[in-house]
Amino acid sequence: MLALTMGEPAGIGPEITARAWAALRQGGPEFLFLGDADLIRGVPVARVDSPESARAAFPQALPVLHRPLPVPATPGHPQAATAPAVLAAIEEAVALARAGRVGGVVTNPIQKSVLTAAGFPHPGHTEFLGELAGTGVPPVMMLACPQLRVVPVTVHEPLARAIARLTPELIVEHARIAHAGLRRDFGIASPRLAVAGLNPHAGEAGTLGHEDHAIVAPAVALLRAEGIEATGPHPPDTLFTAKSRPSYDAAICLYHDQALIPIKTLDMDGGVNVTLGLSIIRTSPDHGTALDIAGRGIASPDSLIAALRLAAQLAHHRRTHAA
Amino acid sequence: MLALTMGEPAGIGPEITARAWAALRQGGPEFLFLGDADLIRGVPVARVDSPESARAAFPQALPVLHRPLPVPATPGHPQAATAPAVLAAIEEAVALARAGRVGGVVTNPIQKSVLTAAGFPHPGHTEFLGELAGTGVPPVMMLACPQLRVVPVTVHEPLARAIARLTPELIVEHARIAHAGLRRDFGIASPRLAVAGLNPHAGEAGTLGHEDHAIVAPAVALLRAEGIEATGPHPPDTLFTAKSRPSYDAAICLYHDQALIPIKTLDMDGGVNVTLGLSIIRTSPDHGTALDIAGRGIASPDSLIAALRLAAQLAHHRRTHAA
Repeated sequence: MLALTMGEPAGIGPEITARAWAALRQGGPEFLFLGDADLIRGVPVARVDSPESARAAFPQALPVLHRPLPVPATPGHPQAATAPAVLAAIEEAVALARAGRVGGVVTNPIQKSVLTAAGFPHPGHTEFLGELAGTGVPPVMMLACPQLRVVPVTVHEPLARAIARLTPELIVEHARIAHAGLRRDFGIASPRLAVAGLNPHAGEAGTLGHEDHAIVAPAVALLRAEGIEATGPHPPDTLFTAKSRPSYDAAICLYHDQALIPIKTLDMDGGVNVTLGLSIIRTSPDHGTALDIAGRGIASPDSLIAALRLAAQLAHHRRTHAA
Repeated sequence: MLALTMGEPAGIGPEITARAWAALRQGGPEFLFLGDADLIRGVPVARVDSPESARAAFPQALPVLHRPLPVPATPGHPQAATAPAVLAAIEEAVALARAGRVGGVVTNPIQKSVLTAAGFPHPGHTEFLGELAGTGVPPVMMLACPQLRVVPVTVHEPLARAIARLTPELIVEHARIAHAGLRRDFGIASPRLAVAGLNPHAGEAGTLGHEDHAIVAPAVALLRAEGIEATGPHPPDTLFTAKSRPSYDAAICLYHDQALIPIKTLDMDGGVNVTLGLSIIRTSPDHGTALDIAGRGIASPDSLIAALRLAAQLAHHRRTHAA
């Protein structure tokens, strides 16, 4: 059993939740929705009072742990009044996972601007989850699709600042967390990490920038000294080709778009966001609230379905690893 | 008829030339090889003395305008003594194209380090071609595959320096040359240009960096004021998805890997490099000399074949456009 949070009530979350249940009701994985039951349209809903009672209901109806909103939601029009309920659903999902009552948490997309206006102090979901379920290391984002896994070392900051902030230690810290996550949650005994270079051709022996030999190469050496099977710095443009991808289990990328361009180019609808370094399993679809199409019934549930499936796999591996 | 240059004699150029001829001998496009005939193995060779005589020979044998090397070539081991002949083949191909005796030039990969050691003053092929066949604008690189065309505004320089060097004028200049090339050589009456942003999410309204609104947005406005159908700045990570690609004819990208990661992720073997802004048609395969596998008969001719096919199409469009 997985816990799926409400996310932004005015976004596509409710409708893709209903479509994901319709796709997964037979065969699973089973999940329950934490949020307002009235958001769910077009599929049968079973109001349940616990994850335990959700299992029996799942094949016939979408189980919902009903947490009513103070105002009705209108697709496409987020309201500040719903912010506390959006956050409470995340907190409750994490509490259920920490108590072992669900195998993992899958989060529907949130509208950051609405939460920020309501006083939410975090830059995003991931940092909030770090506070709720941290393990003393920073939460690390991984994006995964069937052909590729990528881990950005820097994420939501200006590109020039991300470059200035790169250090061997920052790369090593992210690579270590990725390595541990691949072992524990992905069931890969000896994960192979390919570390991308920063500059064109990974600096071409120093003629195209100093960072690759001054920052990235030392990070790879440190990781190898720890026994982690890391390689690089690799020329970024050839790292994500069909020929290169099978040579590693995850690519450690130095900035947001170095990681996100290749994965979204390959697989826009099936990409999944995984947060590593937490005490719980957490995945989410690799898209936003899509306010512009919310409520029209055209949003693809594929990424959410992939996120639910991956969360179930990770929960299975973690149980096996711990046993 | 196209002119194909020798490129680095110790690289994979000769063997992919032979394999490209075998693939294209029936149906074309027809081409002749400018270089040492002794480099060609495994297929029949016809030594010809002009492009005009090459046409009759093509279906039976690879036509070669024989220009002997001063020393025999050894695959995998470039020699400085061959540098003058490598450059002479490029010069002769350009001269034939400028005289209208071939429809375009396709270049095999060169080994820059060898040429530089022999006194070659240019950073690469493209700049040399700019000197031989320039039109008063800088030559602009486009990479094309069946699913995508990309034009990087900055190319072989450190990423931090590329960011610092971005101006609206630099973006506009490249976009104008791309626009003219798409009209004249690709036969697209009203080319649609999608200009990528620099920062994650194209700066997210200024919260993730100032360059998108301070540099990229003004460039798009200038282009639109000239009547060019430009849009952007677009979030870089979603610009190259299967859903986005049909919405533009070329993506104007701000740095090397923003352009090259998506195209190589999509199509490693079929990508073609096109130089826009020259007085002649010029394409080349989107790979290097591959010294590590040269002479082993395993190099893929796919990108060279795609380069020959595209050069023939561009030559056809340019003739039609001029008529």
